[in-house]
This record gives sequence, C-alpha cells and structure tokens, in this order.
Amino acid sequence: MKHVLIVLFIFSLVALPPALLADEGMWTFDNPPLKQLQERYGFTPTPEWLEHVRLASVRFNDGGSGSFVSPNGLVLTNHHVALGQLQKLSTPQMNYAANGFFAKTQAEEVKCTDLELNVLIAMEEVTARVQGTVKLGMNDKQALEARKAEIAKIEKESLKATGLRSDVVTLYQGGEYWLYRYKKYTDVRLVFAPEQQAAFYGGDPDNFTFPRYDLDMTIVRVYENNKPVQSKHYLKWNTKGAAVDELVFVSGHPGSTDRLQTMAQLARQRDHSYPYRLKTYARRLDVLRKYAAQGPEQARQAQGQIFGIENALKAWTGEYNGLRNKEIMAKKEKDENDFRALIASKPEWQNAYGSAWDMIAHAEQKQIEMLNALRYRDLRNSRLAGLAKNIVMYTTEIKKKDAERLDGFHDAQLEELKFKLFSPAPVYPAMEEVLLADALQESLEELGPDDPFIKTVLNGRQPVEVAKELLAGTKLADVAFRKSLVDGGEKAVKASEDPLIVLARKLDPMMREMNKTYEDQVESVIAAAGEKIGKARFAAYGKSTNPDATFTLRLSYGKVAGYPMNGTQAPAMTTLYGLYDRLYSFGMQPPFDLPKRFLERHDKLDLRTPVNFVTTNDIIGGNSGSPVINKEAELVGLIFDGNIESLVGRYVYDDAVSRAVAVHPAYMIEALRKLYDAGSLADELENAGASQTKTD
Amino acid sequence: MKHVLIVLFIFSLVALPPALLADEGMWTFDNPPLKQLQERYGFTPTPEWLEHVRLASVRFNDGGSGSFVSPNGLVLTNHHVALGQLQKLSTPQMNYAANGFFAKTQAEEVKCTDLELNVLIAMEEVTARVQGTVKLGMNDKQALEARKAEIAKIEKESLKATGLRSDVVTLYQGGEYWLYRYKKYTDVRLVFAPEQQAAFYGGDPDNFTFPRYDLDMTIVRVYENNKPVQSKHYLKWNTKGAAVDELVFVSGHPGSTDRLQTMAQLARQRDHSYPYRLKTYARRLDVLRKYAAQGPEQARQAQGQIFGIENALKAWTGEYNGLRNKEIMAKKEKDENDFRALIASKPEWQNAYGSAWDMIAHAEQKQIEMLNALRYRDLRNSRLAGLAKNIVMYTTEIKKKDAERLDGFHDAQLEELKFKLFSPAPVYPAMEEVLLADALQESLEELGPDDPFIKTVLNGRQPVEVAKELLAGTKLADVAFRKSLVDGGEKAVKASEDPLIVLARKLDPMMREMNKTYEDQVESVIAAAGEKIGKARFAAYGKSTNPDATFTLRLSYGKVAGYPMNGTQAPAMTTLYGLYDRLYSFGMQPPFDLPKRFLERHDKLDLRTPVNFVTTNDIIGGNSGSPVINKEAELVGLIFDGNIESLVGRYVYDDAVSRAVAVHPAYMIEALRKLYDAGSLADELENAGASQTKTD
Repeated sequence: MKHVLIVLFIFSLVALPPALLADEGMWTFDNPPLKQLQERYGFTPTPEWLEHVRLASVRFNDGGSGSFVSPNGLVLTNHHVALGQLQKLSTPQMNYAANGFFAKTQAEEVKCTDLELNVLIAMEEVTARVQGTVKLGMNDKQALEARKAEIAKIEKESLKATGLRSDVVTLYQGGEYWLYRYKKYTDVRLVFAPEQQAAFYGGDPDNFTFPRYDLDMTIVRVYENNKPVQSKHYLKWNTKGAAVDELVFVSGHPGSTDRLQTMAQLARQRDHSYPYRLKTYARRLDVLRKYAAQGPEQARQAQGQIFGIENALKAWTGEYNGLRNKEIMAKKEKDENDFRALIASKPEWQNAYGSAWDMIAHAEQKQIEMLNALRYRDLRNSRLAGLAKNIVMYTTEIKKKDAERLDGFHDAQLEELKFKLFSPAPVYPAMEEVLLADALQESLEELGPDDPFIKTVLNGRQPVEVAKELLAGTKLADVAFRKSLVDGGEKAVKASEDPLIVLARKLDPMMREMNKTYEDQVESVIAAAGEKIGKARFAAYGKSTNPDATFTLRLSYGKVAGYPMNGTQAPAMTTLYGLYDRLYSFGMQPPFDLPKRFLERHDKLDLRTPVNFVTTNDIIGGNSGSPVINKEAELVGLIFDGNIESLVGRYVYDDAVSRAVAVHPAYMIEALRKLYDAGSLADELENAGASQTKTD
Repeated sequence: MKHVLIVLFIFSLVALPPALLADEGMWTFDNPPLKQLQERYGFTPTPEWLEHVRLASVRFNDGGSGSFVSPNGLVLTNHHVALGQLQKLSTPQMNYAANGFFAKTQAEEVKCTDLELNVLIAMEEVTARVQGTVKLGMNDKQALEARKAEIAKIEKESLKATGLRSDVVTLYQGGEYWLYRYKKYTDVRLVFAPEQQAAFYGGDPDNFTFPRYDLDMTIVRVYENNKPVQSKHYLKWNTKGAAVDELVFVSGHPGSTDRLQTMAQLARQRDHSYPYRLKTYARRLDVLRKYAAQGPEQARQAQGQIFGIENALKAWTGEYNGLRNKEIMAKKEKDENDFRALIASKPEWQNAYGSAWDMIAHAEQKQIEMLNALRYRDLRNSRLAGLAKNIVMYTTEIKKKDAERLDGFHDAQLEELKFKLFSPAPVYPAMEEVLLADALQESLEELGPDDPFIKTVLNGRQPVEVAKELLAGTKLADVAFRKSLVDGGEKAVKASEDPLIVLARKLDPMMREMNKTYEDQVESVIAAAGEKIGKARFAAYGKSTNPDATFTLRLSYGKVAGYPMNGTQAPAMTTLYGLYDRLYSFGMQPPFDLPKRFLERHDKLDLRTPVNFVTTNDIIGGNSGSPVINKEAELVGLIFDGNIESLVGRYVYDDAVSRAVAVHPAYMIEALRKLYDAGSLADELENAGASQTKTD
C-alpha cells in the first residue's frame, strides 16, 4: 500500500495541472475537453458537431457573442450587447435603447450604425512561424518586434489569399500562436429588442446576481448584398430548454481572464490597477449621472455609458475582492510555487524557463513606476478626442512599412479601423465636453500643473474652459471631415487648424515616447517571459489546460444546477412568478418596476414559465449573448451574466458556487408571443427548429 | 475648536459604551431606550403604552413567545413554537404537527398536553437584597451559596404573598437582580395550525434565511376555569401591516445572548463548546433520521426532534462562524481591552473590579478540563432517563432546607417541576431506545471503558443491549407510576426496582460530586467575577446598555427595511408570487412543495399579498412568536426567524445586514379566509382590532 501511495503522489506532482476543477475551462475548438466530457458526462462531440457549433457562433465586435438561430440570418444576442448600437440608432424622437423595437416585416428592419459580426471559419496553428522568427542573440525588444512583424505578415498574407478577416491570436501567453480567419458581416439589421427595463430588470443592483428575471435579448438579421444571409449553420430552437443536471455547452467569446498570470502580475493588479480603475470610473460615472440628471434628452444620451460603467464597476469590485481574498491568493501562490518547483526540478527546464517569473516581477515594477503617466497623460473619455488621436496616428503610421507600424494600424487591420473612424454614430458635444473637462481636471490633479502633458493641454488655463473651446471648435463630428483628413494624409493633418487635431498633433510625440518606453521595458519583457512560462506549462503539463481568454471563440461545458446561496439553495431556474414577486416586493419602485405591458398583459402569461437559469459553465465578460447548447446542438438558453460568486473567475474558477446565468428560451417565446405581439418572429424561431428537425 | 474636540474625546472615552449600534438592544421594560427612540424615530412610548404591550406579551415556557390578539384569550405564536405541543397531541391517526388543525367552534378546541404560558405582571429590583447577602470575608463559593439562598427566599416569599409565579432574574451578569412575577396559564387550547409544510416552507435549507415564504403561525386560546380568559390587554390586529422604514417594536422573550462575555469565555465557546455541540447533535440527528426512515409512524414520532435539532445546528453553525470570524473577534477583543483600560484608569475601579477577567480566564481553564466528564457522564437523549434522574434528585432535594437545594428544586419552582414530571405527553419507547443506545455508545467512545460512569452503566455490556433492557423494564412512561414515586419520596425511590430508577440512583452521587466541583471551581468564580464586571460596566457606562438575554421579557425597536444581500438588495417584504416562484423553481420538490390546498385554491388568492417581511429589530431564539408592534401598539407582524446574517447576533449585532423575519398579518388573514376556510377566526382577529379602535 505504501508503495502505491508514493507512486501516486509522484504522479500527481508531475503530471496534473494545478487544481483544474470540474467543469472548468474556456476551451479552444482545436482542443476540446473530450476526455473530461466523456468521463463526466458520457458524451463525445463529433468533429461535425464541433464544426456546426463553431460556424453557428457569432462574435459581436462591440464586445459580445451571439448565434445564428434561423436559416434566414437571424442572430440572437443580449440586449446589453446590442445596447451600444441601440444607443447609436436612437434619436430624441425614438429611443430604441429604452423603449425597444420590433420590425413586423423585413422591410422595417433597421440597419445598425457600425456593427461588425465575425464567424470563425478556419483556425491554423502558426506557433512555429511566429516563435521561429526570434533568433538567437536577439534581446527581448528585438524579439518582440520580430514576432509582431511576423504576425502582421501572416495576417496580411492570409487576408490577401482568402479575403477573410485574419487575426493571429496569442494563446497560453505566447506558448501558442494561431491564425484565425473570420467571415465578416457589417450589414446587420435590428429585428427585435425589448425595453431596457425588461431586458435589464433589477438594474445595477441585480446585475451579476441570481435569482434573476431578465429578458436580456435582442434579435438582429444579417444581410449580404441587401438580402438576408442563408445561414446553413444555425442552432435549432428548443423552447423546452435544458433539464436540471443536463449537460450544456456555451460557445462564445470570453473577453479575457488572468488565471495564468504570475503573482507579481496579480499583485500589481490588486495594488495598483483596480484601485485606479475603481476610482477613475466612479468619478466618470458621477459626471455622467450629473449630466443625465439635466433632463430626459441628456439621460437618453448618457444611458449607454452609464450602463457600461456601472456594469464594469460591479464586475471589477468582484474581481478586486477576489484578489484581496487571502485564501484565493494563498492558493494562487501555492500553485505558482508548485509549478516553479517542478520546473526547477529539471535542469533543462530551469535553464530554459526558470528566469521568467523574476523577469515579469522586474517588468511589473517598471510598469508600476510608469502607471500614472500612462493613465493620465491622455485625452480621455471623449469620442472626438479619440478620433483626433487616431487620425493623427494613422497618417503617420500608414507611411511606415507594415511590419513596423503600431498595433491596430497594420494593413490587415485597416478596414476595421476605417469602419470605426468613419462611423456615423451620433456625437453629443455637450456630454463630450463635461466628460473631457473632468478628465482633464483629474489629470491636472494627478500629474500637477508642471507636467508636460498638462502644460501642453492646459497651459495654465482651466480644464472647463479648454474642453469647451476644443469641442466648440472641432468639426470631427462630421464624418466627411474625418474622411478628408484621412484621405489627405499627413499633409492634411499638418495643415489642419481643427483644435482637436492641432492638440493631438502636439501630443503625438509624447505619446509615442511613452509607448516606446512601455514597449521596451514592460511589454517586450512580459511577452518574452510569458512565452517561456507558456512553454514551461506545456513541458510540465502537456496541453491538458486551456489558455486564458482572448475574445476568441471558446467552448465551455457544464450542467444546469442550483447552488448554495446565503444560507440556503439558489434554484436552478426562476419563473415569471418571481418577476412579479420582485416587482411587488419593492413596491414597483425602480429599478424593480416593469414596462406597462407587463401589467396590462399579466393575465395572458403562464407564470410558471421559466425565466432565467444557471449552469456551471465557465464564462466571463464577452460571453454575453452566447448560446447555451444541448447535446443535440439545439439552443436551450442565452447567456447574459454570471452570478456574483463568479466574478473571481477572472483569477480562479469554483464550480461549487460560480454560475453562468442565461435567459430561458421559453421566456423569450412567451414574451414575443404574449407581450410584444411578435408571434411571427416566435414562429420563425420555433419553426426553424422544427423544420430542421424534420429534415435532418 | 480644539478644546471642544478634546472635551468630546474625553466624554466619549468615559461615557459611551463600546459600539452600541443603531437599533441594537433587547431592553428590559424598566429601562426602555427612550433616548434612542426619540432621537432616531421621534417617538416616546408612554408608561401606559409600555404596560399595555407588556401585559399583552406572553411567554411560551416551551421556549418561545406570543401575544394576546383578542379580548377572548386568543394568543398568536409560531407553528414552530407550538410544534412540541402539536407533536405531543398527535397520534398515529391524527398528525396535528404535519397536517394542521382548525377548531370551527370553541367546543372543538383541543387542550395542549403540558404547555405553560406566563405573563409578566410585575417587576421589582432586588439587587441590594441579593448582593447585600454577600458578607465581607466570604469566599466565592460561600458568596454563591448566599446569593442562591437569598434568591430562593425572595421567590418563596413572593409566591406566598401573591400566588404568582416568582422568578429572580440575574441581569448584567449579576450587576442587577430583579424579581419578576408572572400570571401563569396552563389550560391552553389549540385553535388553528397550518400544515408544517406551509408553516415551515423551504424546510431546513430556507430556515434562518430571507427572502422567505412561511405561514409560521399557530393560534391557541387561553382558558381559566374552563372559560376563555377575558384578556383586557391584547394587541389590535392591523392587517395592513407596517410600511417600509416604519418604526416597529418586538416584545418577546429572547433566550440568551453572550455579548457581554469575556474573551476567555468566547474562546472556550469557540474552541470547545461549539465543536462538541455540532458533533454530538449531528450524531443524534443521524440516529433520528435513520429511525424516521423506518416508516411513516416513526417519521411522525421523530418529526419534532428532527426539526429542533436541524434548527439548532443551523443556528450554531452561524454563531460558530461568527466566533471564527477574525474581524468580529478583533472587535470584541478591542472592546474588552478598551473597557479594561478604562477600569484600570481609576484605582478604585481597578481595585474593586480589575481582577474579574483573570478570574474568569482561570475558571474557564478549569471548566475546559471538566468538559468531557460533564458532557458524557450522563444518561442523555432519553426523556424517560431524564425523568428518572429528576425523580431521584427530587426525593433527595425536597428533604433539604429550601435555601440549600439545587436549582430547579426550590419551593417556588416545585409547581412547574411537577407540571413537567407528570406531563402525559406520549413516550415512544422504540425511539427512546435507539437514542439512549447511541448516547451510551458515544459516551463509551469518549470516556473509554474504564470510566466510572461507563462501568456503572454498561459494566462491560453493549450499549444497545443495556438500552434495550432499561427501556423494556421501566414503567416511567406511566404518569401514575411517576406520581407514586414522587409521593412516596426517598423511601419509594430506594425501594423501586424500576431499572431506570435503579440506575439513576446509582449515578446520583457521581452527578452530585461533579456538580459540586463545577460549582466550586467554575460557577461560583464566574458568578463573582461576572458581578464585578456588571458593576464595572455600570460605573463606567451607566445604565445605557442592555443586559444579555435571559428568556425574560424584552423590548426591541427597529424599522422595516431590506438589506444588501449577495451582491444585490433583499426586499423588505416578499409576496405570494414569490412562494409560487420557489415552488416551481424547484420543480415542486420537497422541501419546496406545498400542501394541495395551495394548488387547488391558487386562483382565489391575491398573489400581491405580502407574505414575510424583515426589520432591523435585535432579536434571538426565544423571540419566535413575538408580536411586531407599531406605534399604536397594533400587531403588524409575527416574528418567526432571523436571517442568516443575524446568527452572529449572539455575540455582536450589525444592523447593516442583520434582520428579524416576520409573517405579515395580511398573509395570515388571506390564508385563514381563502385557504383554510377559517373566516370566522379571521373575523375574530380583525374585528378585535376594529372594535377596540372604535371604543378607544
């Protein structure tokens, strides 16, 4: 017995990745967790299943996910993923974001302002090419430049060869590089959105919590050549949803996680990044709320940003609490120490990778010294100022060789850049002005009056005065003016007397200098060290782990399950009864009030209808709008949130209490049919499921 | 300014009790928090208001509270307070506890088996008399005996003079002694109880949590001379209830708190008492569950005990977590250090009281050494064994002078003792047997085979065998047999061959010896030191604090208010919608199922009816069944629980998240009228309110 125990101990010491918990992981489609799925759920998806799900999955480049749900281009996502577009479509006369919309016919569907959707068509590993470009004797900085140049080259070649959007994705902190090719859609039209009050029921208090009662859905239709695309790969609609304990998948685009970061990185986040973010965004939220309080039109303009910041602040607070949790940090530290000890146990590993952690710690120290300048020496919180900076930068970058340009300005990225630069999305100068003024005031307070940035921008004047002047004088709200600058190139920019362009021009050298220092002392070191750690992880554990999220397509698995909450059990799902309970429990006070139709049509509803449900799937921001999928690849839910316990998931996953929160398909159908007179759309969704079932 | 600040600082240093938080306190009726009430809520109860509320308040000596709610003796309490009595009334044919009951006429009302209710008629301070009996030169042991003798004397005199139940209550750990006189009722008849499934909806998971949906009510009627008592002081019924933020009072009998205990006492609880209790009761619960699983009749017999133990385990777990919470303990330690420093700052205080903390620490160390023997050298978990021990003890004690007897055997206490000794409550020998056998097995494991207790009881035999023999042979289930032993006195007990009496007789000297050691080395020291600390507290802070709970009448104040919960807000109240949400959310699975009538009569109900609500009132176990009262002294709720965050309230109160949970009167009326066909009872309750309103 003793012998067996020792062997097992050694085995577990060398071969198991640190604490990979049940249902953990946001897996790339090239490396699905087949072993875990078979062992835990007795299911192995076929290559066809995986391909079908991948091609039915849609990335919303605004920062979310979605899926095709009909053969005629219908795409389902969250209301809050579409919110930015709803906000851009809105006018003082028609508030799409607040009041919702339903196009009874295709003719009534409304084109989104500047929405790009992507579908991942192909994946190709290019690790050898990217890593191979780094030659012996290069320093970190040279290595970084070599990798970046190679990546730009791969992307450009691919774009040229296929016409598809081509992104090289860095996985496992540089342990792997993959070329992802996307089919791109930019003619996307709004079909249905409920009122924000129904979509985001419970508002900021209920955000990131469960039990929950949100109709957080929006349906768009994708067009090509002015016709709905015929989407062969779409998810059949299953109104019944998934049962408790049933295996379900989530296919979507988790934005970022930091589970593989070193202790030095986590400590910097905890002690510097979060305190700064929480402070500066709370300040910005305060400015926006004051602006919104001026009247209904101001409230309409600020609505989207206020939602976004409240959402971010609540998420960051949860993450920050995770980093301040001593138990979590002790576990992270132990994992790192175990990993380092394992690497140190083999001289060849130690030689190749052993220095990485100290390199990162050193670079983090450098970064901390630079943070204040990086944060506050910038024209922040104004869309027009952002456009000015990008136009000035563009005209300089475009003259360089592709490989030498800054990220975001490579040939393969220009189409997307211009899509955003020339977006006709509305600009609200009064709101821009209060935001820019306060951002400058904050920079003044943080940097002091003698800082070169402050001197260049304010030159002894008041931030309010300067912001007013800049925004009164600029013509950048005009898309044609932006186009004329971009087309006119460096010459046009140099000649321009537009005050924002003039200022951005003056600041450009300082920005470049700061970026260069950051690249030299931080980014290149962390990239080199990250690659070492990525390789070390493969050497030690093989490819049994999954990489940190990168806003690229991932598959997670799990089951429908309640969890222990606040002394009792949270159920696996809620019902419409619960929505009305919350309404009357809070005396119909906002944010617990409901649109009128919910009161007028109460008696039509089957109150037993499931509303939201929770699963153990491992997700994070960016997964919003992802489909929940059953073994038959049917849509059985719509991810829109994680519970409060899931927020530490940026750093660690815990399937005991961490849950993904989804809208139940039965609620979407019940609402479409009985609340929104959108039976035709419900039919299109349900029939798409039915007809495909018949013909399959 | 500086001068003012210093003065304030000194003032706060000497005159403010440590961290008395908003709405904290279970106040005696002689010392209501008039200052706080006026300052925070602009309300000052009149002496008449206080007297009326006190005389309408009822103590359930089984361990709960209640209140008169009609002029004809109706008393409202919780189902779980009445559960013991419902269990005792139940037969294999009629399960009152599970199925509920409604007496359509007074003739149908059912007399409770052995329920004693008390109403606090008068309070008289006797501190000088009790403390004065301790003479200079007495050691702790002599002082304890002197105080006990004086207390017995006061109680006996009072009983003789007034005929009222007379208890001397120790407050502020001996800082004050009060004589409480009670009107006593023992003819109490069951009028209405719902099914346990409606009363205790959500079962053990939802116990001590909120949001909640429990109809935790039972109504009894108090009789004297075979007629309903005409209760002049009763609370008018207000179906509307209290609004959010409204000031409300709770008048009831909190069982015990340990907020004034020293760090040494808290450490002993944390490191010894809770681990023991959690272990031994979990074991007992396991035995009961196995017994209940044998069949429906066994389940019926065990129902009450299982509820009680689950309830206790959940409460203790919350309290234990409080003691293990480093922040809470750091705060307690700081409070104690501040208090001790303040006492040390005046030599006369230090001389008189300064030694108390070390005395207690020393006594606690002694106690820890004795704990195992105190716990396991006992015939535990069997009602018949308990009766045997008490009968043996009684016949010895009764021969002594009143002042020298053990607590519980004084003249003034004999009536209550006999009420319990001769209770006709049913005995379940098979259940007694498994419980006693396992308790003996546990004692054997903990004490070892050579312990004198184990030798006396088991003498080398198996616990199962011994328990079987004892329970097969005893006649103590027969009330007449018990009476014959008590009436026959020491002689009858000595002559008895009843195996449980024989065993109790053999063990009696060992018990007495253990008790004596405990009294000498622990109890007397802690009593003396406690009195010092009580006096020190008065010297330092005056009577601005409230004493630890002692299962005597207290008044707490607070307001109806939701609270931050699990990332969002818990509402101030729930509605019937929420009850059905929970039902369907859990797929109608126990313990989230409902009695059939809730499904059959669903459509009759107004689902907006408030069900349960929460207040900031400071309560603890024993307050169950207490009325929630508004400024007009109307009944606006029925306390039945605290939320999970309130469980640390044994040690500290936190009004940010600690909440009392109450049944809303509207739910009681809605249920009586629409679910239970008990409109006549609803009328009696609502009319009692209405008619008194008219005549007042």
